[in-house]
Amino acid sequence: MPDIIAIEDAADERIAGYRDIRERDLVGRQGLFIAEGEVVLRMLARSPDHEALSVLIAEKRLTSLMPILSELPDTIPVYTAGQAVLDGIAGFHLHRGILALGRRMAAPTADELCANARPDALIVVLFGIANHDNIGGIFRNAAAFGADGLLLDETCCDPLYRKATRVSVGATLSVPYARLGQGEDGIALIERHGFEAVSLSPAGATPLRRFVRSGRTAVIFGAEGPGLSPEVLARTKTVSIPMATGFDSLNVATTSGIVLHQLTG
Amino acid sequence: MPDIIAIEDAADERIAGYRDIRERDLVGRQGLFIAEGEVVLRMLARSPDHEALSVLIAEKRLTSLMPILSELPDTIPVYTAGQAVLDGIAGFHLHRGILALGRRMAAPTADELCANARPDALIVVLFGIANHDNIGGIFRNAAAFGADGLLLDETCCDPLYRKATRVSVGATLSVPYARLGQGEDGIALIERHGFEAVSLSPAGATPLRRFVRSGRTAVIFGAEGPGLSPEVLARTKTVSIPMATGFDSLNVATTSGIVLHQLTG
Repeated sequence: MPDIIAIEDAADERIAGYRDIRERDLVGRQGLFIAEGEVVLRMLARSPDHEALSVLIAEKRLTSLMPILSELPDTIPVYTAGQAVLDGIAGFHLHRGILALGRRMAAPTADELCANARPDALIVVLFGIANHDNIGGIFRNAAAFGADGLLLDETCCDPLYRKATRVSVGATLSVPYARLGQGEDGIALIERHGFEAVSLSPAGATPLRRFVRSGRTAVIFGAEGPGLSPEVLARTKTVSIPMATGFDSLNVATTSGIVLHQLTG
Repeated sequence: MPDIIAIEDAADERIAGYRDIRERDLVGRQGLFIAEGEVVLRMLARSPDHEALSVLIAEKRLTSLMPILSELPDTIPVYTAGQAVLDGIAGFHLHRGILALGRRMAAPTADELCANARPDALIVVLFGIANHDNIGGIFRNAAAFGADGLLLDETCCDPLYRKATRVSVGATLSVPYARLGQGEDGIALIERHGFEAVSLSPAGATPLRRFVRSGRTAVIFGAEGPGLSPEVLARTKTVSIPMATGFDSLNVATTSGIVLHQLTG
């Protein structure tokens, strides 16, 4: 059970990592991230790929959180504060009152993630998903349907950004993922590892319902609006979700849920 | 083609309906609503069930919006303003620079919506969906898959709330919907009209993939977290979306997309 340390002053240096959360969301945290809320804290405590460096919670939450806190290593400080001090640290009213500072440990390379996948693995490849709600929603669906991992190109936003993790209900801490290097050819990579590359597009040639996967499969999603590039579509099998006349737009996270449901179970 | 009227002063009474948008979002607009952005304005201009009362746009948008504006009746005033005046009216920086004040005209009762549905209609019934993102996402999916309409209980939030309409990409202006009266028995209503009532629940008896619909079908969704009440589940056919071990949570809008994809086309 970690030590409980009361913080009386928002300027206390021990909780400097939590100060002005929103401003620091924007500039990034050099490999660290903020986890928020009870569900995400539990995922962090149980994640083999991430470690909590410290926890900061509202005093009134302490008793109810004890079961989760007792799962943390003894060396992790648990800071508590009254609501006013907590709000002073965060820079806004921290309604949930549960924060942790985390660090991603060993992150696989895209090559490692693909090489270590099962013979019938299903992975998700994201090109240009810059919206935190969408990244979070896609990770949540990947966890719900047991996808084996995600590959993100360099233009996708950070899955460990506070809001993305919250929207994912902590799935960004449980589903393996890797980043493609800048300019790295993601399609060549997955094909080298024996994945069939399948792109989702409103103009896709095969309706999703008729697509049957076998062996390693990588489903590729692009940003809403622009979608995937003509080059990606030309190099991959294209699949569409048929829609009502005059409406050809689904949210990309919803699309990932429909596709993963169809291709699993 | 409507008249174009330049507004020079944020205090001008002619644009009073647009003043302090966020504050008025919270208190409601007595049957009126604010539509925001180009796509939503186009849906409003074409909706048989809603009318635009006026439009307020940034001067710089005028030329590009002419094709949509010319679809509006001649009697609808189109106000334009410079960005500073526009921001002063709205009370925040109005990035998109495109607003309309709209009114819902004839709204069907729940009874009328059900009575007029096709013999094989698919409708969506929502209990307790109070989140604007989720309401918007569900309407978007209903439009994408051609659902015949939605029924909302009295605890659902307003689909015409600005953010819900924006998230729906204007689908709240195109898909028919009706409100259940306070305390009205929605399940008795849909069954009276010959709909099979189908509830989505993680504990549902039939996996979605094995459910085959015939005739009129009403799929029922509850809020994330609490889900549908035991009473609703006991009175209806229950269907589940099987998920990976240890993860039993999908976003409700994503769930609606998966279900509508499965049951249409």
